[in-house]
Amino acid sequence: MSFDRMIEKIVELQNPTVAGLDPKLAFIPEYIKNEAFAKYGKTLDGAAAAILEYNKGLIDALYDIVPAIKPQAAYYEMYGWQGVKTLAETIAYAQEKGMFVMTDGKRNDIGATMEAYATAHLGTTDVAGEKIEAFGADALTVNGYLGSDGINPLVKVCQEKDKGIIVLVKTSNPSSGELQDMKFEDERTVYNVMGEMCEKWGEALPGKYGYSGVAAVVGATYPAMLTELRAKLTKTFFLVPGYGAQGGGAADVAGAFDENGLGAIINSSRAIMTAWQKDAWKAEHDEKDYALAARAEAIRMRDEIAAYLPKKNGKAFNL
Amino acid sequence: MSFDRMIEKIVELQNPTVAGLDPKLAFIPEYIKNEAFAKYGKTLDGAAAAILEYNKGLIDALYDIVPAIKPQAAYYEMYGWQGVKTLAETIAYAQEKGMFVMTDGKRNDIGATMEAYATAHLGTTDVAGEKIEAFGADALTVNGYLGSDGINPLVKVCQEKDKGIIVLVKTSNPSSGELQDMKFEDERTVYNVMGEMCEKWGEALPGKYGYSGVAAVVGATYPAMLTELRAKLTKTFFLVPGYGAQGGGAADVAGAFDENGLGAIINSSRAIMTAWQKDAWKAEHDEKDYALAARAEAIRMRDEIAAYLPKKNGKAFNL
Repeated sequence: MSFDRMIEKIVELQNPTVAGLDPKLAFIPEYIKNEAFAKYGKTLDGAAAAILEYNKGLIDALYDIVPAIKPQAAYYEMYGWQGVKTLAETIAYAQEKGMFVMTDGKRNDIGATMEAYATAHLGTTDVAGEKIEAFGADALTVNGYLGSDGINPLVKVCQEKDKGIIVLVKTSNPSSGELQDMKFEDERTVYNVMGEMCEKWGEALPGKYGYSGVAAVVGATYPAMLTELRAKLTKTFFLVPGYGAQGGGAADVAGAFDENGLGAIINSSRAIMTAWQKDAWKAEHDEKDYALAARAEAIRMRDEIAAYLPKKNGKAFNL
Repeated sequence: MSFDRMIEKIVELQNPTVAGLDPKLAFIPEYIKNEAFAKYGKTLDGAAAAILEYNKGLIDALYDIVPAIKPQAAYYEMYGWQGVKTLAETIAYAQEKGMFVMTDGKRNDIGATMEAYATAHLGTTDVAGEKIEAFGADALTVNGYLGSDGINPLVKVCQEKDKGIIVLVKTSNPSSGELQDMKFEDERTVYNVMGEMCEKWGEALPGKYGYSGVAAVVGATYPAMLTELRAKLTKTFFLVPGYGAQGGGAADVAGAFDENGLGAIINSSRAIMTAWQKDAWKAEHDEKDYALAARAEAIRMRDEIAAYLPKKNGKAFNL
């Protein structure tokens, strides 16, 4: 009923990062695509098969050093129900390897419908008495614009099945401030109010390391707000996007961590997925080594972030 | 690049309503489920087959009197990728019958990812040069919490493919006010600011009847706000949920329409889908007539809403 499992995995691997799996076809080596298209044609089936193969290669190369993956639902939906099948298979494959899986779906709706999303992505679906996991992720990103009605059904599933949710607070994109930075009559910003709601919703899902089962998305591209929110939201874990391709660096995310090096997990998607496409790498490697490039980038990122944090007995991340 | 096609359909059928297709298994007659489970077992495949059969029956019974359907993505995702396949098949079937399809997904993300959602739900996916529609709806509901970055990629697809988007402004659920009713320093509420953003985003998608390709979700359960927003947002069409099962009535939605009876489409999901389960209906009919019950409820709703509106030459809805 919290992010305890993920926190333990971060400490075990001494790595507070998550690999975003946002698999556009353009990110996938030719040999994988050629094989899939030879079998299924240039179809959604072919695309979905190529993505699954690519994802499995990345997971095989990352699971012993990276605690979690974050598949972005949009990139699977783009390839139709076939892509969505690949999403389900990717989640299952990563979990078999011991990884914590956050489905990035930013789902939101009114109570009864949110119950359906909670069931779909975190819970078990009842089919005439049979209990079946539809997607079975460990956590789901959600949008809190609809208020508590849209969150409570998720909290219930998190309690029953030891899962977590991650609410958008301050997103990493350039226009996030259009609404999120606006100030209310009492001087609080929208993102502050949303952050406080996370603290409140999290009370129903306490964790043994101080962080609840309700985390918050706070972008690496706004380091001052990241530090401000870390100080204010003491029980809310942060998922931090915007590192790497979007411009956030290790110095920018340092403020997201508490004195034990906990409190945040930093996402990188494109920099890991497309590491094999960089000129310097391509000059010396075959595209079949794409997963090795991803692993090298994941290690580089891990070490870069740890370098900015204080150590206890040589370790940056401590329970 | 607007809701013109939908508006024309509303006027043709003299019906400003949309049938929400939120198919829980509990809403589906036993004979449909038994047949599907006999073929596929009590599995997600069986559930997805039952939902498709049920949806087709509803569409067959509604397409000549109801202009649009609104499938709610959550209820399809709940049945896994198999359910998502049924979503794609439901959209295609309704469009073959001439219905306008709004996928209710409330999607939201940063720019690059929103492009993937736009492609998935409204556009065409490029698979090595082949252009394929993944879901191909006519419109998609979205959440504007991330600001313009999350909307612009959709606007582009709407321009190219004559599609529309529908942004959450004031939702129908009891807790919608927790954030949406809060007031900024300048006295505007969050829902007012979001409504003004819809007017601005819509400028890129003008329609010939005065309404742009950016519509707004405004709940029937808050009739005063519905009337307030109708007066303020002159170019923004409204999708109005909350009628029927959630408590909104015909009097509550009357304020959503302009002087021509345009400007709004009222959704009803459960009341239409489960009309066959009402005691009075069941006493006189077989469950195999479930679609007839839906049709009767859709006609009742159409006439009830029209009764509250002024007529021009005997017609409530006029171009």
